[in-house]
Amino acid sequence: MSVTAAKGFTAAGIAAGLKESGNPDLALVVNTGPRRAAAGVFTSNRVKAAPVLWSEQVLKSGQVSAVVLNSGGANACTGPQGFQDTHATAEKAAEVLGTGAGEVAVCSTGLIGVLLPMDKVLPGVEAAAGQLSEHGGEKAAIAIKTTDTVHKTSVVTRGGWTVGGMAKGAGMLAPGLATMLVVLTTDADADTAVLDRALRDATRVTFDRIDSDGCMSTNDTVLLLASGASGVTPEYDDFAEAVRTVCDDLGQQLIRDAEGASKDIKVEVVNAATEEDAVQVGRTIARNNLLKCALHGEDPNWGRVLSAIGTTSAVFEPDRLNVAINGVRVCKNGGVGEDRELVDMRYREVHIVADLAAGDATATIWTNDLTADYVHENSAYSS
Amino acid sequence: MSVTAAKGFTAAGIAAGLKESGNPDLALVVNTGPRRAAAGVFTSNRVKAAPVLWSEQVLKSGQVSAVVLNSGGANACTGPQGFQDTHATAEKAAEVLGTGAGEVAVCSTGLIGVLLPMDKVLPGVEAAAGQLSEHGGEKAAIAIKTTDTVHKTSVVTRGGWTVGGMAKGAGMLAPGLATMLVVLTTDADADTAVLDRALRDATRVTFDRIDSDGCMSTNDTVLLLASGASGVTPEYDDFAEAVRTVCDDLGQQLIRDAEGASKDIKVEVVNAATEEDAVQVGRTIARNNLLKCALHGEDPNWGRVLSAIGTTSAVFEPDRLNVAINGVRVCKNGGVGEDRELVDMRYREVHIVADLAAGDATATIWTNDLTADYVHENSAYSS
Repeated sequence: MSVTAAKGFTAAGIAAGLKESGNPDLALVVNTGPRRAAAGVFTSNRVKAAPVLWSEQVLKSGQVSAVVLNSGGANACTGPQGFQDTHATAEKAAEVLGTGAGEVAVCSTGLIGVLLPMDKVLPGVEAAAGQLSEHGGEKAAIAIKTTDTVHKTSVVTRGGWTVGGMAKGAGMLAPGLATMLVVLTTDADADTAVLDRALRDATRVTFDRIDSDGCMSTNDTVLLLASGASGVTPEYDDFAEAVRTVCDDLGQQLIRDAEGASKDIKVEVVNAATEEDAVQVGRTIARNNLLKCALHGEDPNWGRVLSAIGTTSAVFEPDRLNVAINGVRVCKNGGVGEDRELVDMRYREVHIVADLAAGDATATIWTNDLTADYVHENSAYSS
Repeated sequence: MSVTAAKGFTAAGIAAGLKESGNPDLALVVNTGPRRAAAGVFTSNRVKAAPVLWSEQVLKSGQVSAVVLNSGGANACTGPQGFQDTHATAEKAAEVLGTGAGEVAVCSTGLIGVLLPMDKVLPGVEAAAGQLSEHGGEKAAIAIKTTDTVHKTSVVTRGGWTVGGMAKGAGMLAPGLATMLVVLTTDADADTAVLDRALRDATRVTFDRIDSDGCMSTNDTVLLLASGASGVTPEYDDFAEAVRTVCDDLGQQLIRDAEGASKDIKVEVVNAATEEDAVQVGRTIARNNLLKCALHGEDPNWGRVLSAIGTTSAVFEPDRLNVAINGVRVCKNGGVGEDRELVDMRYREVHIVADLAAGDATATIWTNDLTADYVHENSAYSS
């Protein structure tokens, strides 16, 4: 269902020849209206890919008619030529769809530092436009995969309106958005301001809190497009909840498909002085390579949790820290707690609770273990 | 030669039974004078092991007669009992050496969160004292190994005086000191103030700039002890240079022996606006797991260097960044530079130069690649 679950959208996914494998690599999502409101959030990486620079400009108008997405090349660190290529892609889509290039967002993903083969991209856009369909959502989701093993979609339907979406992402998952492309669509009748607020509220506590490998991408983009085709204007809170639910679901799918991972690790920081402290501590634990290796080895090595907490600037006293792993309080008041042998580490999900005993703020960060498969996937070939 | 290269020092290394393997695990270094001046730097981790808390107090007097070091247990996150155990260790050494416990520094390394078997440590201290020798430096260096594959020592001799030292460290190597224990000795006639200044000047640009895996330890300690036995008082600059040379040599030995590493990576940041910027960028590059995997795979993936730089707050313009890998300028003005196929990646050392084009400050950070062997070493058992 994906991006075409909501009324007022068509999509397509095709093989344009960008990937040597011949797999699908170009997707098109079109808002057929009546509304064409949109909001977007982008990577906070200061080295931004050409399509991010372009789409940030497009989103300033709050109007998006279409999104062109390609895998098989990130078009990042490609200089003025890369930006011209993105522009040409948007112009091509505008031409075949009968809209303006200023309403066409572009997203790219793949290897950094290589120009896209425009002799394949431009015909690809035309071919995709010829295959646009109200049932094209799944094909679009498949076409944006890179090292993803599965395509990721999610749909929530409320009273007469729907929010749906697709995501790609498997490595380079980190903060300021996890490395990924996400397109969300809705047929709710919502204006740009509502979309922007709901999207930022949602990404702050979902995509921004998954951190598979601490590496932030140059291409992260999350777009929310509204067609208004349902004719229903939901209450803000209901709409925001639906957007957050779809983002959370897609975020979980990203973590579960992270490169080489064998564990999905939920790091819950509780009793922090501030939410900022909680996020900082959660991220620092989530990025500790030694801990991630230990958890891969099913070793509830809480000492590595404490040594990670100790590198943060959060408010805490070392002798008041508590850590529970899978429900066993292995560290109590900064020292040895319950027997670590009691921790059952056999399952894919690992739940760490770090109690800072410094307030009542909380945050949850999701990450993965560090495995030989991760090393293999990221060393055996360029990606 | 190690810590007994300088006159006025004895040392010993024995197997006290802390390691299941039966390998040496307890070392003693004694300053026989006439001076007993000392300086120390400790981990900036806020979760500090008991021996760090103890030794910080000892160093406040600027006088150290002896150092007890053990592997086989970090005595970190062990609460009040852990601190009492460190105190008892110092008392025992003071008793058998005829000095005060307040002049005995203690260092521990090994698994976090486990109490030391004091029924083995205390007899071990006594046994080590019985074997003190002016030739004991190497044995001491061997006894502090954990996952180190080799023991690390270094000696510099200048006009009539010597600086020597030993180090242990292989994993959890990161900033605010790389995870390690280091004891340096000198027979130069230098007071505490000179030692302190020379040690801080040296560690700031040596140990503080090796970052194997981004993980900071709870136990890092670097001590510099002066006996004055040479009767020579060197010029400050000469002395500082000798200390820095020994620290640099030991730091390089740590990087070369890092857990599972197959590459030693020199990240040189040039033309930064400030030294702080240069260090921040260097560290961020050094900690990028995706880059570390790529370099393991002998892939000069400069896109991952740029995406790492982009996450920093350093002064730079993305389209002025340059990156050279092993002498080939693969990224020029933020885009594609010379052909990456020209980069020879066959050797163990990899040299990355990141040019921020924003000033004239520079810094060099050393790190390692990320390998399946690293994952294995840190997941197969607790350490």
